[in-house]
Amino acid sequence: MRKKLALRQSQVNAALENIFAKGRDLPQKEVFAAMEYSLLAGGKRLRPVLFLEFAGFGGLSAEEAMPFACALEMIHTYSLIHDDLPCMDDDDFRRGRPTSHKMFGEAMALLAGDGLLTGAFELMLGAEGGVPAENRLAAAYEIASAAGCFGMIGGQVLDLANQTEKARPDGAEPFRVAAKQDLTQINRLKTGALFRASCRGGLLLAGIRKEKYLAAAERFADALGISFQIQDDILDVIGDSETLGKQTGNDEKQGKATYVALWGLEKAQSEVRRLTAQALDELSVFAGLGDPAFLSWLVSSLSERTF
Amino acid sequence: MRKKLALRQSQVNAALENIFAKGRDLPQKEVFAAMEYSLLAGGKRLRPVLFLEFAGFGGLSAEEAMPFACALEMIHTYSLIHDDLPCMDDDDFRRGRPTSHKMFGEAMALLAGDGLLTGAFELMLGAEGGVPAENRLAAAYEIASAAGCFGMIGGQVLDLANQTEKARPDGAEPFRVAAKQDLTQINRLKTGALFRASCRGGLLLAGIRKEKYLAAAERFADALGISFQIQDDILDVIGDSETLGKQTGNDEKQGKATYVALWGLEKAQSEVRRLTAQALDELSVFAGLGDPAFLSWLVSSLSERTF
Repeated sequence: MRKKLALRQSQVNAALENIFAKGRDLPQKEVFAAMEYSLLAGGKRLRPVLFLEFAGFGGLSAEEAMPFACALEMIHTYSLIHDDLPCMDDDDFRRGRPTSHKMFGEAMALLAGDGLLTGAFELMLGAEGGVPAENRLAAAYEIASAAGCFGMIGGQVLDLANQTEKARPDGAEPFRVAAKQDLTQINRLKTGALFRASCRGGLLLAGIRKEKYLAAAERFADALGISFQIQDDILDVIGDSETLGKQTGNDEKQGKATYVALWGLEKAQSEVRRLTAQALDELSVFAGLGDPAFLSWLVSSLSERTF
Repeated sequence: MRKKLALRQSQVNAALENIFAKGRDLPQKEVFAAMEYSLLAGGKRLRPVLFLEFAGFGGLSAEEAMPFACALEMIHTYSLIHDDLPCMDDDDFRRGRPTSHKMFGEAMALLAGDGLLTGAFELMLGAEGGVPAENRLAAAYEIASAAGCFGMIGGQVLDLANQTEKARPDGAEPFRVAAKQDLTQINRLKTGALFRASCRGGLLLAGIRKEKYLAAAERFADALGISFQIQDDILDVIGDSETLGKQTGNDEKQGKATYVALWGLEKAQSEVRRLTAQALDELSVFAGLGDPAFLSWLVSSLSERTF
């Protein structure tokens, strides 16, 4: 299983490395360098891996689904670059390296983010191969909706309103402690939406339209996404900054509402276990389409991750 | 003709006003307010109007082509919001009103731009109606490519490298006078790419694939786009800031390479006339598909615009 994950990750990385090859000799090559710097900085490639698995339930090969899998990683990466900017979280390090604006300046980081977001759509819409146009439209629409203001960007907006005055350069919003509902709402949008699109989008690209499967994929992604976010919050408190590749203790310093701040460490950890069990449970629906054993292993190992 | 332009503009405006209606009551409503603030601030709606005309050559109604026409305006507006940010051009006014970051703060302006770009794809990919999926994919891909790092964003990168040290907050690039080729290259990407996508994209959405038409649309858009940019440069020197809704003299203050700086006013004006004639000439190809009289009038009147 660990081998299959490593294989998938290296397939995704190989595909990501080729996307901007055409741009490296153009006069505007600096923006391609900035995009590659962040895109190829490592990372678990979780969204692409999920997408490939769910597309596989409908019989698509990794090769056929790869442009969409890569597009998800590009959208995730753009959101990190823009999130790290001084006017947002103002982070200096990401995945163990200086953030994009620290390396290339704010203007180039802004444009690199814009370029990755736009490039994700170029990749999905321009993909050749035998996947019917209707299925490509449905999957790309699913991903666009998840990335937009009804999804991920909406979550960023809510998250912004949850930071202390001190942490916001424009000082516009006072600090407030988020209630559980708020925090889950934020994370359902900020992290959850792209997880849902990774799972549902894979099914849609493969032509699977049955509500039974789409709804199960959504519940699976929700449980996994929130559990993943709680684990992130936990690691920001008890994790090792070298293993994580970023500073820990950031959330508390910025006065961010987190699950650990809300529930304490112990309850946060038990929620990870509960949601993991729930995610595993949802996978049984897909046994009729293929073998969900790899996804089961992936979900379990994510709940125990230290990075 | 002026009446038809006003009709098209009001159809586009009505469609733009409805796009975010669903978002106004959500907890993240501030980002919808910020997007609408910029999107509904007026403007000539030139790209949507071009798109509707070219889609009309293939028999599509304004209603059928409208989601794509609106998407072009959303992409144009996002590029203005990000371009106005302090780390880019640092502009305080746009279309006679405070820029987005002046109204909503930098973080929200960043997210509003991201939201408009993503929303453009949600709109194109989620559009219902009778247009075949292949044609929607082809048009959306054309627009994505034009907006990305091989198009508009690439032009922004080159433009950034053409500003004085003083004008760049990070002071990374020294001033250099752009040669004619550079400037035309910048504008072919920064402004021209979206003009090309407006014309070619309309044909593609309508299912027109003949190289004769696509190439003529491209030459038309190139001539119009460069002429439009030269006229912009001229108006920044001799225009009236109240009529324009923005400060004049900005280009010189920022040490930007412009056609006027490069050629002087008189040659710039004669180039507008030459390119206008060229654009008009290209339109004759489309006489076999429909009546290009409105486009002819539009091109002529743009060359004489004062705003």
